[in-house]
Amino acid sequence: MNHMVKKHLNIWKYDGQTIRKTEDCAAVEFPFTIYIDGEEFATAVCSPTDLEQLAVGFLASEGIIRQMDDLDSLDIDQARGFAYAALKRKQTISKEFYSKRMIGSCCGKSRQFYFYNDAKTAKTVMSKQQISITQCFRLMADLQTQSEDFLLTGGVHNAALCTADDIMVSFSDIGRHNALDKIYGYCLMNHVPLHDKIIAFSGRISSEIVLKAAKIGVGILISKSAPTTLGISLAEDLGITAIGFVRKNQLNIYSHPHRIIEVADDLEEDATTK
Amino acid sequence: MNHMVKKHLNIWKYDGQTIRKTEDCAAVEFPFTIYIDGEEFATAVCSPTDLEQLAVGFLASEGIIRQMDDLDSLDIDQARGFAYAALKRKQTISKEFYSKRMIGSCCGKSRQFYFYNDAKTAKTVMSKQQISITQCFRLMADLQTQSEDFLLTGGVHNAALCTADDIMVSFSDIGRHNALDKIYGYCLMNHVPLHDKIIAFSGRISSEIVLKAAKIGVGILISKSAPTTLGISLAEDLGITAIGFVRKNQLNIYSHPHRIIEVADDLEEDATTK
Repeated sequence: MNHMVKKHLNIWKYDGQTIRKTEDCAAVEFPFTIYIDGEEFATAVCSPTDLEQLAVGFLASEGIIRQMDDLDSLDIDQARGFAYAALKRKQTISKEFYSKRMIGSCCGKSRQFYFYNDAKTAKTVMSKQQISITQCFRLMADLQTQSEDFLLTGGVHNAALCTADDIMVSFSDIGRHNALDKIYGYCLMNHVPLHDKIIAFSGRISSEIVLKAAKIGVGILISKSAPTTLGISLAEDLGITAIGFVRKNQLNIYSHPHRIIEVADDLEEDATTK
Repeated sequence: MNHMVKKHLNIWKYDGQTIRKTEDCAAVEFPFTIYIDGEEFATAVCSPTDLEQLAVGFLASEGIIRQMDDLDSLDIDQARGFAYAALKRKQTISKEFYSKRMIGSCCGKSRQFYFYNDAKTAKTVMSKQQISITQCFRLMADLQTQSEDFLLTGGVHNAALCTADDIMVSFSDIGRHNALDKIYGYCLMNHVPLHDKIIAFSGRISSEIVLKAAKIGVGILISKSAPTTLGISLAEDLGITAIGFVRKNQLNIYSHPHRIIEVADDLEEDATTK
């Protein structure tokens, strides 16, 4: 059973000629609240799948945990939408502080924008993994083939953890950032080495998506959608190759193009002939 | 000058045959931090336009102000992305409390999901305004005509405040919810009566969008995109007519169809013949 889509909703449809009562489906939007050591920490509105991965990825993304070992326990109440995390080392967590804007040049990156938790957790990616243009198109085509929910309801984003050749695992969510958190949680739960991995994504490459890729530790991010200026600056800053508008045999590379095999060849040739 | 789009970005473009360095543009993503009486309250990542409207709408949406009169002053530092609001009646504001999940049936709407600030500010809409299917198509076509930034960069959402016949004002933002907050701010700043207004929107009809429409006080929400299940439930709950997938001479009505003139006629006929 697919929990991500609710079927048999009563709607009124105008088909260009007449209006009639019929049934349709829509993406499920589900509130999911995470408690840390008995304290309410945050509520995400998400698709109700892979909630353990989402909880783990969210906690890691917020800098609360670094690895599964930091968790004493994690209980998921799937039906009601709650996660109860217990940490091994109790800490005083001020969510307010975590989402404070970092002002000034205290992390040496004064031009960019970070929240405190991002500056703490997003590290420059040193991955040497490369990818060819053909591989980009293949991964994006595979991602779209797996995206039935999106086709059905027009409301779900997909993110996949990939090698250069294949999708290893993919997650869907109505929230762009949740799909990335599910990947992060999966990686921590399964001790996946990340230096040679790639993320293929259906959504826009915005600052929060690039920050999450850096937190996960992936050097290449490909998407069928557009980037934002801040997404591009952060990708530049954090050592991530951002590839967008991967559509119909075309694509754009916005940062660190040396990880694209064809560009690396060009750059090398340029260097040799000079 | 258009601040929403940054031009002349250096990218590498693969056009299906060769890869070359060229220039492209991208939607600007801009951090905007709101202070209340000297305390940092929140940071939104937005398009850097209509920041005064955004700040006012955000404060109203969070339940901090109800009208412009509640503000002693509002200063916008456009270049650096800061807003400094001073309230007439100083209050102790705990952002943490505002984003706490409401659990149980304390607002009599136990099945739905609200944050505390939503339950405080989103009221059931009593508007009697109606719209015809032809008017829906015309408003959505007008919205898309005005959406150059979206066409140019593929990364901006548009929201317009409308009468049944015309767009009064429209706002764009990379964040779906920011576009609605700009409308909210505009309405408060200009004392716009809302009982006869309609919102036309380019983005998905999710819970937060429906909640914002209810806070603004608009009874009809039309979008070219999909709704979510929670968006539909909240629209049902808050008295909002949600119309989605307005595309190519077709549309779906998800809640309170009596505000659609053609359906109202049908419903009346049904009632008469029974």
